[in-house]
Amino acid sequence: MKRITLFAVALAMLAVAFGTLASGQTDGDAAPIYGVKIPSGYRDWPLVSVARVGGPVNDIRAKLGNDVAIRAFRAGTNPFPDGTVIARLAWRQVTSDENNAVFRSAMLAQRLSPDVIQKVLSESSVAGPPTNVQFMIKDSKKYTSTGGWGFAQFTDGKPDGEAVHKTCFPCHAPAKDRDFVFTHYSR
Amino acid sequence: MKRITLFAVALAMLAVAFGTLASGQTDGDAAPIYGVKIPSGYRDWPLVSVARVGGPVNDIRAKLGNDVAIRAFRAGTNPFPDGTVIARLAWRQVTSDENNAVFRSAMLAQRLSPDVIQKVLSESSVAGPPTNVQFMIKDSKKYTSTGGWGFAQFTDGKPDGEAVHKTCFPCHAPAKDRDFVFTHYSR
Repeated sequence: MKRITLFAVALAMLAVAFGTLASGQTDGDAAPIYGVKIPSGYRDWPLVSVARVGGPVNDIRAKLGNDVAIRAFRAGTNPFPDGTVIARLAWRQVTSDENNAVFRSAMLAQRLSPDVIQKVLSESSVAGPPTNVQFMIKDSKKYTSTGGWGFAQFTDGKPDGEAVHKTCFPCHAPAKDRDFVFTHYSR
Repeated sequence: MKRITLFAVALAMLAVAFGTLASGQTDGDAAPIYGVKIPSGYRDWPLVSVARVGGPVNDIRAKLGNDVAIRAFRAGTNPFPDGTVIARLAWRQVTSDENNAVFRSAMLAQRLSPDVIQKVLSESSVAGPPTNVQFMIKDSKKYTSTGGWGFAQFTDGKPDGEAVHKTCFPCHAPAKDRDFVFTHYSR
């Protein structure tokens, strides 16, 4: 059998084996207002970009995207197509004594000044405990009053309350020109 | 045919169709010393964790892992199995005026003090231009003198020089107890 045929047949078999698992499966309870659930397997999605927010929020965060989202980010598609899902993971920023000991040694070997070394170490951090996970899901027919987006926030796998979810769209509204998405894709 | 059988057969067919593509394809020139090339498709790999390093380095970074790496991180496997590849992407930290304008509005609406608002904004950043990309590749037979790891750094897709690559293993040596890997997986 030719490779391409073999590949096509194998893919078709996988599709049957998995059913609709790849794109539509969700876990746990629905968040209020938008009814969004946690998309299965989101933790395996490719990275869109990273950022950090200062204290007292004090987090370091990553945006992941499903296949539809990643294709749209890379192509610069605006607005994002229905089926786009963007996940925002965040963790408390914590100091890593282990990393800093290594940075210090490396910088001493490079004969950097104590001031420079201190600056690097004081401004370095790693991801600590997770804070919460947020999702934006594009469905232009379902979420007509919020720019086509549904929003959700989960803490320890459980949806947060209605008050939190009321803040999502107003906060994203200033990014209307970019289909309410702040994050830029990082190459 | 039962689902599990169908799945197994489909996977076997995929393996034949793809040959060694999934784990072995690379792009571009080999880096010095270890001969490592850029693994194809690494930008789609799942996220291990994120971190930042202070000025003058001033970057925000993400570690991605291939399937072998991600499975090992999640299972706490030590040492990492042969075939593990960990990618470190990094970008200059830059201030996002667009994000900060939104943060400021949101914080003013919450009646936070100017001091708090200033602190959040001054400590917030996003990923700017990429700096370089690094890889760690586990091959315990090939890289016997460096803990079983090959290292590489690429800037704009081109391997950096030998001097840079001489610093990789000494810097990772303090993490010997954790198979020379500093990053912890973030759930």
